[in-house]
Amino acid sequence: MAALPDLLLDLDRAGSVPLLRQLYLELRRAILAGVLPPGARLPATRALALQLGVARNTVVAAYDQLLAEGFIEGRTGAGSYVSRDLPEGLEARPAPPVAAPLPAPIPNMAQPGTAPFNTGRTAWDERTARIWRQLTLRRVQTPDPAMLGYGDPQGARPLREAIAAYLGAARAVRCTPEQVVVTSGAQQAIGLVLRVLLRAGDAAWLEDPAYPAVRAALADAGARIIPVPVDGQGMVVGAGVSAAPEARLAYVTPSSQYPLGVTLSMARRMELLAWARGAGGWVIEDDYDSEFRYAGRPLASLQGVDEAGRVIYIGTFSKVLFPGLRLGYAVLPPELLQPVLAARLLADWHPATLQEGVVTDFLAEGHFAPHLRRMRQHYRAARDTLVEALTRECGDALEVEAPEQGMKLIARLAPGLADTEIAAAAAARGVIARAVSPMYLAAPPVQALMLGFTGHEPGALRWAAKTLAACLR
Amino acid sequence: MAALPDLLLDLDRAGSVPLLRQLYLELRRAILAGVLPPGARLPATRALALQLGVARNTVVAAYDQLLAEGFIEGRTGAGSYVSRDLPEGLEARPAPPVAAPLPAPIPNMAQPGTAPFNTGRTAWDERTARIWRQLTLRRVQTPDPAMLGYGDPQGARPLREAIAAYLGAARAVRCTPEQVVVTSGAQQAIGLVLRVLLRAGDAAWLEDPAYPAVRAALADAGARIIPVPVDGQGMVVGAGVSAAPEARLAYVTPSSQYPLGVTLSMARRMELLAWARGAGGWVIEDDYDSEFRYAGRPLASLQGVDEAGRVIYIGTFSKVLFPGLRLGYAVLPPELLQPVLAARLLADWHPATLQEGVVTDFLAEGHFAPHLRRMRQHYRAARDTLVEALTRECGDALEVEAPEQGMKLIARLAPGLADTEIAAAAAARGVIARAVSPMYLAAPPVQALMLGFTGHEPGALRWAAKTLAACLR
Repeated sequence: MAALPDLLLDLDRAGSVPLLRQLYLELRRAILAGVLPPGARLPATRALALQLGVARNTVVAAYDQLLAEGFIEGRTGAGSYVSRDLPEGLEARPAPPVAAPLPAPIPNMAQPGTAPFNTGRTAWDERTARIWRQLTLRRVQTPDPAMLGYGDPQGARPLREAIAAYLGAARAVRCTPEQVVVTSGAQQAIGLVLRVLLRAGDAAWLEDPAYPAVRAALADAGARIIPVPVDGQGMVVGAGVSAAPEARLAYVTPSSQYPLGVTLSMARRMELLAWARGAGGWVIEDDYDSEFRYAGRPLASLQGVDEAGRVIYIGTFSKVLFPGLRLGYAVLPPELLQPVLAARLLADWHPATLQEGVVTDFLAEGHFAPHLRRMRQHYRAARDTLVEALTRECGDALEVEAPEQGMKLIARLAPGLADTEIAAAAAARGVIARAVSPMYLAAPPVQALMLGFTGHEPGALRWAAKTLAACLR
Repeated sequence: MAALPDLLLDLDRAGSVPLLRQLYLELRRAILAGVLPPGARLPATRALALQLGVARNTVVAAYDQLLAEGFIEGRTGAGSYVSRDLPEGLEARPAPPVAAPLPAPIPNMAQPGTAPFNTGRTAWDERTARIWRQLTLRRVQTPDPAMLGYGDPQGARPLREAIAAYLGAARAVRCTPEQVVVTSGAQQAIGLVLRVLLRAGDAAWLEDPAYPAVRAALADAGARIIPVPVDGQGMVVGAGVSAAPEARLAYVTPSSQYPLGVTLSMARRMELLAWARGAGGWVIEDDYDSEFRYAGRPLASLQGVDEAGRVIYIGTFSKVLFPGLRLGYAVLPPELLQPVLAARLLADWHPATLQEGVVTDFLAEGHFAPHLRRMRQHYRAARDTLVEALTRECGDALEVEAPEQGMKLIARLAPGLADTEIAAAAAARGVIARAVSPMYLAAPPVQALMLGFTGHEPGALRWAAKTLAACLR
């Protein structure tokens, strides 16, 4: 009979782990460590129970579990032995280090948390909260059996119908529900499209400065990133054509360039579409916050003026409802639909069905337009509060212009100030002011801060403006 | 002044689209099509209103929109012109065909729908439904501001704590909440891990037959797939070692081989871990339905006996709650955590926060274990109903054995019958019986059907068994 490993005597009688489980784990560890080698005989259950001062049943149950798992073998009355099937000396060799390179982590840009100026926060007023509650309750009250099972990888058809109707009316997007793919946020939509369109080394135009998550996604997809400068009319399309006419795709934010907020002019839009048509390129139009326009009318989407089917339109519910939903969508030219669906199925199958149902009802039952109207008023007021507070508190150190659209503003720093330093100082005081200069690729960076004004109370915005002013001095 | 394109006269006065919008769209189309070329003067608003028989305000508003979007330019009183910034003849050139190859669609395996024998259906009894309703309502009643914003890419910490506690107690998985990554279903967890571990051309062991979605994911990741045969003890590890000892990883379903249902023996487990440790390989343990065990005790997880940190444990809430949730998780060796999180952030940021919250409460407040106990009874009864019905209805044409675990059974066909043909005949009669032979890679395929018995009423199971019998004759 094998000597009992000492550790077996080390049972913790006061702890929360049952004695049976402790005994089982310790015996297993002794077997795996080779303390009890293959073929070794285990103590008789009665003897072990006596030695440990536990009930015999406890020991029998632990042995049963080890027997069921193949660690030990034995016949009733003939004793229990460590299984001879187990290879010997498993624990001896050290593990070799990881061989292949692993991708490096990318910075997390939109941060969790409610600290002032954090971007991506949305307001959620009492009225929307009440409607949301009612719609959610109705969906869980009598769950549709289909909701409990696997769903449509493209997204539930009623939701796609509601999205297509909304986009047609509000954004002049021309599409049928068959072209819509509901995704887990815009980020997934962009990732799936890149996955389908790009081969390693393909050139891709990217606005400079650019949205960091898309820059990372392009790099991850193996794209050769072509930075295309941005001026007062948005992306300088001619520069892209000069640098890489053969590019496979262009990523643009036409309604409001990210991060600078410029609108892509109609002339540039036409140039971009002409390039796509002539070169067989694709245009990814990320229309992330066009719903919130405070002056003039919104420009129609690029997708809506594209007669050649080269534009992939990306939208999100993160801005118009809330990011925690994780719902976005892509409107695809028909030839891309099947490949994107195949990639989606591999990625994570289909959207979560309850969320789909609630958003469908919210749109289809007419709650969306009034919600957007209220939020627009709300956000415009927040914008004005922030502009006023920054102008008052920060004076000449910041150049602030009220944006005509969106949920954030860009505040340019006076000469001599570095945005990364100010951002770090602000973060130390609990204010999230994102530096713009790191979002540049090749163009000379502007030193500016990106300040989100939505989803923050006026008092918090004023306090944060004061705090920022202290950092600027 | 340019001649008015005829189509402008084609306004639909009875339709649901406002006249203003129709007019805007037709003018825009005329500009894009070159019917109204750059520099062309548009009719005066009064003249056009008269000609079309619409209010002059309507024409003014349509022109305003075109002006705002840059399609036309003009000064009050001096007439409106098609913008000279627009490039000419945009519509003339035909679009070239798509250049790069696109990935082919993969078959959708778990199908939406409630037809009998469809796999992946879960029962949802009155008690669970009531608890779920209450927990959901509570979460939406007073939404946590954090729930509305961006969340933790790793998954909310309270959920990770609940998962780690559950896995430790029920599956002998050894992990801290820091090792858990909550994903959008097991499919995403597997995809992220493959994304991080595999470089194109790396060898990967795959059970033969195998779970088709993982086979597709491996192919998509560029793996060189090494089929490893399965016998009565599960994956024949020695065959994998002979064929490709240098493999980067092995994908296994140790608790219940997919699709055959065999348990990986302890000796094979030890062999597999010894290979991983010695070769620096990784083992992906997909533990997809081990919660439903009808005989004997479940074997502890492979992860729990791995002393070298080579096992990645994958679990899902699709089987224990419902697939429409889209929640699963990976338990990672510490060195893989950061790379997987980086890939997750790129993929779709973070899990949907409401679902996370409800599942957290369901686990943390003690509802999960009783739910699993009730479902286990339920599913065992369904299994027995199906075995009895198949035995009675199908006689010698099917060889049926009641599985000791899981939510489906494998019915082997009598010699001479082809599973794909029977499956097609059954599908034509509204019964989803999946053929097993297409799940084989290189090994001689077994002709068998995979029949899901969970989430279907006893009457539906009996009817479907009768229907299947008719197909077998």
